Amino acid sequence: MRNIKAIIQYDGKDYCGFQRQSKQGSPSIQETLEKLLSQAFHEKITVYSAGRTDSGVHALGQVINFYTKSNIPLEKIVPVLNHRLPEDIVFSKVEEVPLEFHARKCALGKYYQYHIYNGQQPTAIGRRYYYWVAQTLDEELLRRGAKLLEGTHDFRSFCAKGTSVKTFVRTLYYIRVERQDDWWTLHFYGNGFLRHMVRIITGTLIDVALKRRSLEGISIALDGKDRKLAGKTAPPQGLVLKSVYYP
Amino acid sequence: MRNIKAIIQYDGKDYCGFQRQSKQGSPSIQETLEKLLSQAFHEKITVYSAGRTDSGVHALGQVINFYTKSNIPLEKIVPVLNHRLPEDIVFSKVEEVPLEFHARKCALGKYYQYHIYNGQQPTAIGRRYYYWVAQTLDEELLRRGAKLLEGTHDFRSFCAKGTSVKTFVRTLYYIRVERQDDWWTLHFYGNGFLRHMVRIITGTLIDVALKRRSLEGISIALDGKDRKLAGKTAPPQGLVLKSVYYP
Repeated sequence: MRNIKAIIQYDGKDYCGFQRQSKQGSPSIQETLEKLLSQAFHEKITVYSAGRTDSGVHALGQVINFYTKSNIPLEKIVPVLNHRLPEDIVFSKVEEVPLEFHARKCALGKYYQYHIYNGQQPTAIGRRYYYWVAQTLDEELLRRGAKLLEGTHDFRSFCAKGTSVKTFVRTLYYIRVERQDDWWTLHFYGNGFLRHMVRIITGTLIDVALKRRSLEGISIALDGKDRKLAGKTAPPQGLVLKSVYYP
Repeated sequence: MRNIKAIIQYDGKDYCGFQRQSKQGSPSIQETLEKLLSQAFHEKITVYSAGRTDSGVHALGQVINFYTKSNIPLEKIVPVLNHRLPEDIVFSKVEEVPLEFHARKCALGKYYQYHIYNGQQPTAIGRRYYYWVAQTLDEELLRRGAKLLEGTHDFRSFCAKGTSVKTFVRTLYYIRVERQDDWWTLHFYGNGFLRHMVRIITGTLIDVALKRRSLEGISIALDGKDRKLAGKTAPPQGLVLKSVYYP
């Protein structure tokens, strides 16, 4: 038995998210991968992922692992799979790892980007990869708001309602704000992320940058531990899982 | 009566091209615009464009003009139309011009870009905006090939078969080759372009850069005035109409 670790990319627009699900409608990334891998390797394959991205969220560096009995040479896996996959899912790299490696359980940190376009009118090209905010954002306020969220906090207010986890405490090593004219990118690097956490933080920071919410409102949300105290969940298309870190 | 000139953008993926057509299937940009403008201004509106982009070709700076009896303030036109248009068509700018202005007849030059990705494996994100070439392109050969096509030539070999025009002579002011790692952009600036001309030139230059065709083959194609002597038509998704020039 071999354990294969893979870095994959996908355009999440036409998928219902990463996780396998039995409901009808658009497929999940997981079921698309499992179906294809099972066909390619002539055995039933289960895919484990570092994170379960939501419907419409993209990935450039999602990490998965799967077990196979196949002895296909490692260097053939990427071209064989990419040839069979739909255009919006791509394998970037594979390697063979010890049997105990698990993409989610072994992950030490993740890096996400959130893309915002702040022009008065939207663009027609690339619209599936950013969130358009028409009103002018205040850069200084956005940066100061981001600073307040860095560090180790209970992020319960910044987590989708109904999420069941052991603890809501996570460490955000940094939120970096990058700007080129009307194009903004928020970089999030942390040891773990709760459900919708990056998108709720982004929605809250946008409120601050539009002066709809004070900087103090961020501290109030952190302290209050109640989803109602934070801003709206920013839409999925601006979000990209860039990379996952392992020991 | 007012004559309105507009700069528009579109993602051509889900359209059958610019031109109005009665056939079934995906709509054209022109019919989408005419339907919307006629509804917004409560009168039948005809749209004239600088160029008829093909199915799947994108635009960042297509220019159109249309006549209207409406006295809507100029500054309201862009937000009103963008609010009603599908997400993949956007009005960037409008101005009122003399009645004799015609987007195609008055155009002095056009600027196109063609995007190529030359990585060993494709990317999942943004795939609708570039042509993926897996084999390694030779930069020097591509640049030298491009130089041979600059200037004033009879481009009959680089024009879709069956095109009826008065003359196949056009002037290509330049073809600039830009490269950033695996991402290539070919910039084409000329006084006019025949049907499929940019895509056939691109297909031919790719042949040269893959050593499937000699540099001499380009001169032979130019001299021979026969579509069969040039390369394949590169696919539409890499092409963008960037801007149109007027006196």
